[in-house]
Amino acid sequence: METLMMSGRPVADACKEQIKEKVEAAQKAGKKVALAIVTVGEDPASFVYRKRLLKITESLGIGSRCVELPGIATTAEVIEAVRKLNGDPEIAGILPMMPMPKQVDGEAVGAALAPEKDMDCLSPANGGALLIGKGRWAACTPRACMAILKFYKIPLDGKHAVVLGRSNVVGKPVALLLLQENCTVTVCHSHTKNLPELVRQADIVVAAIGKAGFVTPDMVKPGAVVVDVGINVTENGIVGDVAPEVAEKASAFTPVPGGVGVVSNVMMMDAVARNL
Amino acid sequence: METLMMSGRPVADACKEQIKEKVEAAQKAGKKVALAIVTVGEDPASFVYRKRLLKITESLGIGSRCVELPGIATTAEVIEAVRKLNGDPEIAGILPMMPMPKQVDGEAVGAALAPEKDMDCLSPANGGALLIGKGRWAACTPRACMAILKFYKIPLDGKHAVVLGRSNVVGKPVALLLLQENCTVTVCHSHTKNLPELVRQADIVVAAIGKAGFVTPDMVKPGAVVVDVGINVTENGIVGDVAPEVAEKASAFTPVPGGVGVVSNVMMMDAVARNL
Repeated sequence: METLMMSGRPVADACKEQIKEKVEAAQKAGKKVALAIVTVGEDPASFVYRKRLLKITESLGIGSRCVELPGIATTAEVIEAVRKLNGDPEIAGILPMMPMPKQVDGEAVGAALAPEKDMDCLSPANGGALLIGKGRWAACTPRACMAILKFYKIPLDGKHAVVLGRSNVVGKPVALLLLQENCTVTVCHSHTKNLPELVRQADIVVAAIGKAGFVTPDMVKPGAVVVDVGINVTENGIVGDVAPEVAEKASAFTPVPGGVGVVSNVMMMDAVARNL
Repeated sequence: METLMMSGRPVADACKEQIKEKVEAAQKAGKKVALAIVTVGEDPASFVYRKRLLKITESLGIGSRCVELPGIATTAEVIEAVRKLNGDPEIAGILPMMPMPKQVDGEAVGAALAPEKDMDCLSPANGGALLIGKGRWAACTPRACMAILKFYKIPLDGKHAVVLGRSNVVGKPVALLLLQENCTVTVCHSHTKNLPELVRQADIVVAAIGKAGFVTPDMVKPGAVVVDVGINVTENGIVGDVAPEVAEKASAFTPVPGGVGVVSNVMMMDAVARNL
């Protein structure tokens, strides 16, 4: 059986086409479409991410506005900036870059976002909607996982998905999205005993644990579908949470880099376009 | 090994004591404390439930206000009633009885609740808080399951909990609460294949599937802890989702009736008292 490499690029390209059409139609109708990115202070990782997003907005004809607050900004000041963007008809979406400096209450900032402009499911209202099965407003990375599985026509109904990691941005939302697609879902994490034994039962493995090469071939059932959300910076470059040798045992897998990450960035633009 | 019957009564009584103290202290300070119950139309099951709740409010010295809207009320009218209660300082909590008649958008009603007065986690804001691990505002039944496990000192950290059922009111929230307590969590449902095999792996089984006697002894690992959320009306009276014979195999179990249900009703009053 040949192993399917679920590359992110074709998924991203297909999404981009749809987004482009929506954006062009809106602009023809005289509507301005821009993504606002709010940074507080000068976190280098946030700037790298922002640069990448700005490149994609540009390629899709989406405008952008960078709101840069000083590193000493208060929660109230960040919320004030978010509220202004909430009320600005030219802004289709707002992304406040997390984590914020210590003195800023990131959750309060998320809660201040107008739910329809909340690009990465930071507001409790969108989290609550996800919980009751209205998952289209989930965060970009879990949506990217689902978009890849869908693009490559991986059957989900009745399959046993094992999610490694229980973060608010990936593990928990992707578990809910898989549940919504009628998967049986197990969530494993740092306190899980007999983890390899559990992962071996999975038809679908989603690794979002943040440890380079954590999932080894002995932990994977032959023929399983493996989605690697990990982005770990190592001496050997960027590697995933899944050891490369797992590819030989899986029926399908996402590469790192070039897998979930690529699609996740485009999902941000998909979120911008969802109100058009 | 003797099997522990995790009766709900002592759990409920312990909770009641705490609630009573809080309510009395608030009343001594001149604060009025009342639960508002909103019904639309004349659903008999809602009236039975309301009667039971009113009996408990009374026993705890909590006031009550029954808001009865006609069965033809519109969504806007129900929301208007909820908003009035939101702004009423004498009302500590609001419970709109679900399900509402067809023409009323129950989700919109839930979303209209002031989150701090939302007694059963109907508002998306409270659902979102639960999702990111702020579970104290979860719905009453999942909180009752956790209260029972805690009262009977059942170890949770690192245990494998299998939840049967994925409803918004029980399955999903109890899965999140168990995850928060460091359980490994599997959610099974109607599309799950090899369900008995999965349940047999559980250290803790939570049955919330709504089928009388669904969980049979062959599906349970010897020594497992079994929480039965089911309330099924049968010819033989009210029975749970777990067959009675499971008690012989489990190390601990909740009876039906007299288990989760008893505690769940008191959790409603705990929610009323949480703002005091």
